[in-house]
Amino acid sequence: MSTDFTEKLTASAARSESWLCVGLDPVLDRLPEGVPRSASGIATFCASIVEATAPHAAAFKPNIAFFEALGADGWHALAETVQSIPDGIPVILDAKRGDIGNTAERYAEAYYGELGVDAVTVSPYMGWDAVLPFATWPGKAAFVLCLTSNPSAADIQLLQVESGNGGREPLFERMARLIASWEGTCGLVAGATRPEQIRAVRYAAPDAVLLIPGVGAQGGDLEASVREGSWEGGGGALINASRSILFASSGSDYASAAAAEAERLRVEMLRAQPR
Amino acid sequence: MSTDFTEKLTASAARSESWLCVGLDPVLDRLPEGVPRSASGIATFCASIVEATAPHAAAFKPNIAFFEALGADGWHALAETVQSIPDGIPVILDAKRGDIGNTAERYAEAYYGELGVDAVTVSPYMGWDAVLPFATWPGKAAFVLCLTSNPSAADIQLLQVESGNGGREPLFERMARLIASWEGTCGLVAGATRPEQIRAVRYAAPDAVLLIPGVGAQGGDLEASVREGSWEGGGGALINASRSILFASSGSDYASAAAAEAERLRVEMLRAQPR
Repeated sequence: MSTDFTEKLTASAARSESWLCVGLDPVLDRLPEGVPRSASGIATFCASIVEATAPHAAAFKPNIAFFEALGADGWHALAETVQSIPDGIPVILDAKRGDIGNTAERYAEAYYGELGVDAVTVSPYMGWDAVLPFATWPGKAAFVLCLTSNPSAADIQLLQVESGNGGREPLFERMARLIASWEGTCGLVAGATRPEQIRAVRYAAPDAVLLIPGVGAQGGDLEASVREGSWEGGGGALINASRSILFASSGSDYASAAAAEAERLRVEMLRAQPR
Repeated sequence: MSTDFTEKLTASAARSESWLCVGLDPVLDRLPEGVPRSASGIATFCASIVEATAPHAAAFKPNIAFFEALGADGWHALAETVQSIPDGIPVILDAKRGDIGNTAERYAEAYYGELGVDAVTVSPYMGWDAVLPFATWPGKAAFVLCLTSNPSAADIQLLQVESGNGGREPLFERMARLIASWEGTCGLVAGATRPEQIRAVRYAAPDAVLLIPGVGAQGGDLEASVREGSWEGGGGALINASRSILFASSGSDYASAAAAEAERLRVEMLRAQPR
């Protein structure tokens, strides 16, 4: 990965001394007291979280599902949220899209062209041509699902597939090598469930940026994720936390509580960096 | 599959004497002459296509990407389009979503609860728990991607995986058996690229409804798709055509041209039914 996206992310990580990605997964019925339970309440809430946590964040990751759940008003709230993110901080839209070329191009146009985000998460099941419009858009990046942190991920991602030399390997390792070979700017999503799996993804794709969700509310091990995901001289490892930051307090102090949690994670990640 | 969705589809197929699914993938710059090139033009266009082709259609499949590309206005156009579809005809929202449980629930709420569609297409890479909210919503169905018709599909879907008995099989066949074993109402998406692959999916999932895209503009073989996908006493096979119907004419006669093309496909499919 050596494009505008990577440069923007590297500069943002250096400035904040952080590889923390703040996930924006707002839920109406978990909004703190005093915030209206509406799409515009969500936009206000997200803008406050962004403002409070930006000093500690290398990137933000709004999850489009939580906005789409509110229909057309949700779309406006998403656009406002993206606009509230300071210019130098990359925005990764968590959309997990994956569709044939002409459809993928529509999505890319909507997200890069209209919304103005810097990267989009993409599902790999349909193969390279479904990822291409996201990965080759000038200056942008696709983060392709490789290993996810949900319980059923093993159903598919741990299936043993034939490797080129007659051996066997789990599907997610094959995916990691495939993705690393694809044209354009591709990061990999690698859930924090098991450290040795993150290590396997990192070996298969040494230069790619990893996006590691599942730390925090989902219970993944932050220290091990940083240790296995980072790669001196290669791609960095963005660690995502969403709910543990967003809902750090249900009171009117939610923004300062979110900032404190983001700061705590940032420092913990710095300590875990391999030297 | 034996739920409200399946009953609604079977009744609709019987009434129309058709297993044709009309895909709604509207593109601004391909709208016929006289239709405004705007979100409301798209809503008008889709409503005219729906009215003209409904007598020949077992189901409609709007593709959300083509509406999302227009932002909040696109969401309104999608809602209008869904509302224009007659009550007895199932609506399959082509969204290819796939995300962890709490996110998938948001999508399910938006699509089933708000938009009121009958089924959603879903990507399988994250496994069962990402499909569950779509497949177990009362009366609704998930159509899970199994085999797709795009050129890169082979990158992933044809990988050889270990089968339970020590042998090997392509990933899509394993997926078909997995999907058929999942709780809830799951159909399978099986692209019309190669008839013997549709046959393999059908054997792996005899009772499931297949949704077969790739016929028409994408060049798949309609007669072979009907022959291999249909299963006497088991699930039916919906054949989807989008662009060949939508853009049958670029003139002001687009609705009657679409109706003629839908009728032609319906009759061709009836002739291809195994007896």
